Amino acid sequence: MINKQVRLAARPDGLPKDSDWEFTETPVPEPGEDEVLVKITHVSLDPAMRGWMNPGMTYIEGVELGDVMRAGTVGIVEKSNSPALSVGDAVTGVQGAQQYAVAKPRELQKVDPSLAPLERYLGILGMPGMTAYFGLLHIGRPEPGQTVVVSGAAGAVGSAVGQMAKAKGCRAVGIAGGPEKCAYVVDALGFDACIDYKNENVRAGLKAHCPDRVDIYFDNVGGEILDAVLARLAMHARVVISGAISQYNKSKFSGPNNYIALLSARARMEGFVVFDYAKQYGAAAVEIVKWMNEGKLKTEEHVIEGIENFPSAMLRLFSGDKRGKLVLAVAEG
Amino acid sequence: MINKQVRLAARPDGLPKDSDWEFTETPVPEPGEDEVLVKITHVSLDPAMRGWMNPGMTYIEGVELGDVMRAGTVGIVEKSNSPALSVGDAVTGVQGAQQYAVAKPRELQKVDPSLAPLERYLGILGMPGMTAYFGLLHIGRPEPGQTVVVSGAAGAVGSAVGQMAKAKGCRAVGIAGGPEKCAYVVDALGFDACIDYKNENVRAGLKAHCPDRVDIYFDNVGGEILDAVLARLAMHARVVISGAISQYNKSKFSGPNNYIALLSARARMEGFVVFDYAKQYGAAAVEIVKWMNEGKLKTEEHVIEGIENFPSAMLRLFSGDKRGKLVLAVAEG
Repeated sequence: MINKQVRLAARPDGLPKDSDWEFTETPVPEPGEDEVLVKITHVSLDPAMRGWMNPGMTYIEGVELGDVMRAGTVGIVEKSNSPALSVGDAVTGVQGAQQYAVAKPRELQKVDPSLAPLERYLGILGMPGMTAYFGLLHIGRPEPGQTVVVSGAAGAVGSAVGQMAKAKGCRAVGIAGGPEKCAYVVDALGFDACIDYKNENVRAGLKAHCPDRVDIYFDNVGGEILDAVLARLAMHARVVISGAISQYNKSKFSGPNNYIALLSARARMEGFVVFDYAKQYGAAAVEIVKWMNEGKLKTEEHVIEGIENFPSAMLRLFSGDKRGKLVLAVAEG
Repeated sequence: MINKQVRLAARPDGLPKDSDWEFTETPVPEPGEDEVLVKITHVSLDPAMRGWMNPGMTYIEGVELGDVMRAGTVGIVEKSNSPALSVGDAVTGVQGAQQYAVAKPRELQKVDPSLAPLERYLGILGMPGMTAYFGLLHIGRPEPGQTVVVSGAAGAVGSAVGQMAKAKGCRAVGIAGGPEKCAYVVDALGFDACIDYKNENVRAGLKAHCPDRVDIYFDNVGGEILDAVLARLAMHARVVISGAISQYNKSKFSGPNNYIALLSARARMEGFVVFDYAKQYGAAAVEIVKWMNEGKLKTEEHVIEGIENFPSAMLRLFSGDKRGKLVLAVAEG
């Protein structure tokens, strides 16, 4: 049996190119003592992966050249040498862009495939959902009646943030690229408004849709959109720094020139890392499933087939050509 | 009797020029019912004044062209039509760059000239001291053993921040311009170290003097120094945005390109406005005077004589050619 893999061949300058990747085929590994073999069904595609392609960043270990690209995964246990997991169990982990991987049970979390399709455990029931939940609730601290703005509103994290804000009694305003995404955000997801940054003036849109200014801004993109929202903060606003997808392919980040608005607005800009909340994931999942059952939280996965499409699929993260959580289905046979 | 005044004649582009100011002489006004006449002894020179020279900023009302320049003041009541204040009382207020002004008692705070020289009520016992106190303690929230870095360390606010940090059991590292200021900050004020940004690499200095990284950064300057400190934040660090003197004379602010370090460090960047704490000034002054009596808090005023020197004195705020709190002695006769 063959294990197809995607390896990091070169460190990209800007957007990753095809030549930054190498495809390899190796024998499927055998699990050792207290290990299991997982047949990976889906590989997650996340903006953070672009950072992992860089050499030493200060806060995340980069992927070594020649190594299998780091990625979140979901799959099925195919062989088990551990009493902790049985053949047929569904598990998530960070097993990389490949079709098979060996792991220790403690590196995996068992999930229930009867509750949701497997790929959803890479989305709302995985890292993007937890990022939305803890960033909004623990850093943003929404109160009923407040205005929450989120960028990347049609994406895996942003779509969840706005719906969670609505569930908490807030006004939700999204920012997304293109009329189709904006229509989806408002009509399907129930946001109060969505600003199309590709075709509208974001500052004018914020003025129109946030008459009481912005109490919480959940930022997934950075750049000019962050600056525009900073200019519209309400007193004691919270800016949740979750990501900066507009900057990930630049050799040098651009900071928010309007940061001094934090002073006048007595506002707080705060970063967080979702893994810090790992012990609370279970409780969060309970509330998320409750919202889903009540129809308050809709999710969508954008599934692309075939491990050979990994390079082009990843580019969709940055071109915006996707909706909801982007995943790659990699299992064959 | 003549009242000499400094008025805003033009809106500066960059550093204020002599031609941006107009000197006028008007008769000393008579206080009306329930008003007092104050003979101003000292006018405060503060970086925030540069912002007041601009047209409508979002968060502070600009000074109108032709008006007396807004400025903090201290002086002596010379005539009183109010039972609330007597002739001879010392008072602070925001009475502008002039020698005399009429005011209502509620616009003034009575101060005790036997406790400290009058100009000190524009410094450690006035806005700069309160800015240091509330910014450090309420926004920064220092804990014993933590590392506090402050820019503008030889200035009115910065010198107080570092000494207050020491009083709270923290390690204090200053950033200032030139070897003389740095020697003053360490030798006279008792900071643990001071980085000379004009002659040293700030990042290297932070690495050398903050081995456990930076828990609190009190930022008075913005610009490249802010970026350098962001790259050295400790986990859960707090960045207190107090000012951005490096940016005040630019037509467009430059934001911190390293703001994304907030994410990895799970850090918070927060602005504040000292006037929000007005009701707590009294309690703060008690603690400040206690520190001064214990020798833990030294202050210095840099007094320039003569209202005609207002334009050149103000430029010293930005050239750095001053130490401690800069004030202008304006009384004559």
